[in-house]
Amino acid sequence: MRSPHTLDQLVDALRCLPGIGPKSALRMAYHLLQRDRQGAQNLAHSLDNALQLIGHCELCNTFSETSLCPLCASEDRDNSLLCVVEMPTDLMMLEQTHSYNGMYFVLMGRLSPLDGIGPKEINLDKLIKRAQDGVVSEVILATNYTSEGEATAHYISELLKSRHIAVSRIARGLPMGGEIEYVDSGTLSMALLGRKSV
Amino acid sequence: MRSPHTLDQLVDALRCLPGIGPKSALRMAYHLLQRDRQGAQNLAHSLDNALQLIGHCELCNTFSETSLCPLCASEDRDNSLLCVVEMPTDLMMLEQTHSYNGMYFVLMGRLSPLDGIGPKEINLDKLIKRAQDGVVSEVILATNYTSEGEATAHYISELLKSRHIAVSRIARGLPMGGEIEYVDSGTLSMALLGRKSV
Repeated sequence: MRSPHTLDQLVDALRCLPGIGPKSALRMAYHLLQRDRQGAQNLAHSLDNALQLIGHCELCNTFSETSLCPLCASEDRDNSLLCVVEMPTDLMMLEQTHSYNGMYFVLMGRLSPLDGIGPKEINLDKLIKRAQDGVVSEVILATNYTSEGEATAHYISELLKSRHIAVSRIARGLPMGGEIEYVDSGTLSMALLGRKSV
Repeated sequence: MRSPHTLDQLVDALRCLPGIGPKSALRMAYHLLQRDRQGAQNLAHSLDNALQLIGHCELCNTFSETSLCPLCASEDRDNSLLCVVEMPTDLMMLEQTHSYNGMYFVLMGRLSPLDGIGPKEINLDKLIKRAQDGVVSEVILATNYTSEGEATAHYISELLKSRHIAVSRIARGLPMGGEIEYVDSGTLSMALLGRKSV
């Protein structure tokens, strides 16, 4: 016996979610139909809503319902600093430190040729235009210290330096509370190389 | 900075999916909005469709777009046997064995008081009515051999036996290709207890 056609379609549709394979999708479909029809309704509605309303901020490229996101529209920020991050979550983490008052640019990804994500997919044209607005005096690269994040930072720094824009990279070293005995050797060697005179 | 309201709503809505916490939901929302708007559209549409079209078979309680599922509507099945399973996937597995030609009843779950799933949630009233149709001569309990599946089978068998309906339970023992050296002791002791004269 085959399962109903509409159910198969739902299972297929659920597989567009990252990390969800056929078994999880089937489990989700059963759960939604059997135990949480209200939730499913709500999800369908929220998806429609989000697709309709959420676009990208013209300046910083983060998700926004308005053409300028609240942060870019704010008058209290330092327009001369531009911090490049991979994802909106990174932006939020940086904001939570309360130690940065400049602007942001959100790549919405990182260079990852194997996943088909090249310079175009992470909006580098938009970043270069943004960095050349005449006000930005320094671009701070705050991509992750993963191999993909590093490659992205390197690629962007080359692009910007060839256009005579000052570029910096956030520091690498021991984390707060980090103990030398327990830290990995990569971090430790970077902390040594990046030492500062006191 | 807060993320857009509609995005928060989408993240909340995604959490109705089983096994999805706040971080996964955020990752999914970003993925859908950034890389797969087509998929998101499709998902919303499929959810709406499924909610509208998929109900339960009047007889066996499985998901069905028609009031009787194809299996229950079939004329070639043995109406005197009724096999009780937890989920439609279990039904499909049993059908794939091609060794059973009776009818089914799908509980759509198992007794699990801690998750708030009691006799009502697994449609036991419907099962009892179904088993007392005058044609069914034996109910075969094919719930899982997990503690919850076992408890469910026990509960159902008590209910049915008090109504003088013959009840059986699928066998427990070594799996096909199972080697005594490697099988767990619980299975082995059950295989011993369930031994048959040859």
